[in-house]
Amino acid sequence: MIQIGIVGGTGAEGRGLAYRFASAGVRVLLGSRDRARATAAVGELGVDGVSAAINSEVLEACETVVIAVPFDHAVDVLSEHAGRFRPGCLLLDVTVPVVFARGGPRLAEIPEGSSAERLRRHLPGGVSLAAAFKTIPARALLEREPLDCDEFVCGDSAEARARAMALVGMIPGLRPLDAGSLEAARILERMTLLAIGLNRRYKRHGARFKVVGGGWA
Amino acid sequence: MIQIGIVGGTGAEGRGLAYRFASAGVRVLLGSRDRARATAAVGELGVDGVSAAINSEVLEACETVVIAVPFDHAVDVLSEHAGRFRPGCLLLDVTVPVVFARGGPRLAEIPEGSSAERLRRHLPGGVSLAAAFKTIPARALLEREPLDCDEFVCGDSAEARARAMALVGMIPGLRPLDAGSLEAARILERMTLLAIGLNRRYKRHGARFKVVGGGWA
Repeated sequence: MIQIGIVGGTGAEGRGLAYRFASAGVRVLLGSRDRARATAAVGELGVDGVSAAINSEVLEACETVVIAVPFDHAVDVLSEHAGRFRPGCLLLDVTVPVVFARGGPRLAEIPEGSSAERLRRHLPGGVSLAAAFKTIPARALLEREPLDCDEFVCGDSAEARARAMALVGMIPGLRPLDAGSLEAARILERMTLLAIGLNRRYKRHGARFKVVGGGWA
Repeated sequence: MIQIGIVGGTGAEGRGLAYRFASAGVRVLLGSRDRARATAAVGELGVDGVSAAINSEVLEACETVVIAVPFDHAVDVLSEHAGRFRPGCLLLDVTVPVVFARGGPRLAEIPEGSSAERLRRHLPGGVSLAAAFKTIPARALLEREPLDCDEFVCGDSAEARARAMALVGMIPGLRPLDAGSLEAARILERMTLLAIGLNRRYKRHGARFKVVGGGWA
């Protein structure tokens, strides 16, 4: 059984998630507009349990779908495939609305407040939406070392969050944390900007977050 | 020599910072509108190196001043004392624009983007502004246990950040991290909201952050 599909799976984020989920024993359908590119990405990953498909097949086959296209393409891709979602589908938004302009990275202006909330506006009613993997660098997902950090999950219902958190929890080294309603994506997307800035300022890489202190240590 | 003054020092945040700085050997002038309340707070703290004053004296005496009044009073307090800043003063903004409404905590609407940026608009030109201690709960500052987390510092100049980071670095268990320009306060203030939400949702307390992974572990 294929458990997770990835629309736009050939980028670093999509391949990284495919690698992490497949390594955890989850079957992954890695999608692209172009079947040959999907097949090439699957071959490159070299892990068992990942198959290639075109994006429309991913939506038709999977009840959990990650949207991993660049944030400024996500609405178009979803609109193109709006009729293809399975009933009760959970869409997992991992997009990060950061633009690399002269003067450094900054957040794209999104009237809805966050990329996740913008996607919500363009989704059919029967589809649930959760956001996760916003604060983990794609590069870290692709590395062969433990992630060892927290993963903040927000979503448009308690059920959507619970489903997304169960998935996150399958990946070793990730502690899923319920960050609340979809509006929390405003925080998470900004934390990505903070992590990118820290990496640049300190000439390091891979910055991500752990909640510590009090009852959290 | 008094090294740090705290305007609005009788609240939990002000007392917590006074406790942490004084424990680190920094002399603190704890201010209040009301001298008797400042004196009472100093007595309650029971650490050496903290003296009581009224807010105007704090500004006149200290080259580094923490503004620890509630966020929605901060502009008024600064405007009231605008003429009292010492030349070259560094103001450290620790305010958090979170309001506890029915339905849970949420961010106050601030047209400038963050409480720190709003304060900047109301400060005399010769005063530098940095923001820090936004993501550490006041209660954690007051506890007698190590903080053991990261402390994000942003500010309106590299010099302001460097001064603020040097102060933060004096407190054991805190790693100061340069979060960039003052605009980063938009991120930090939202992270406080995330931490409060996590504490409520998981019935824990004291949530704060550590940057981990890659070169950061």
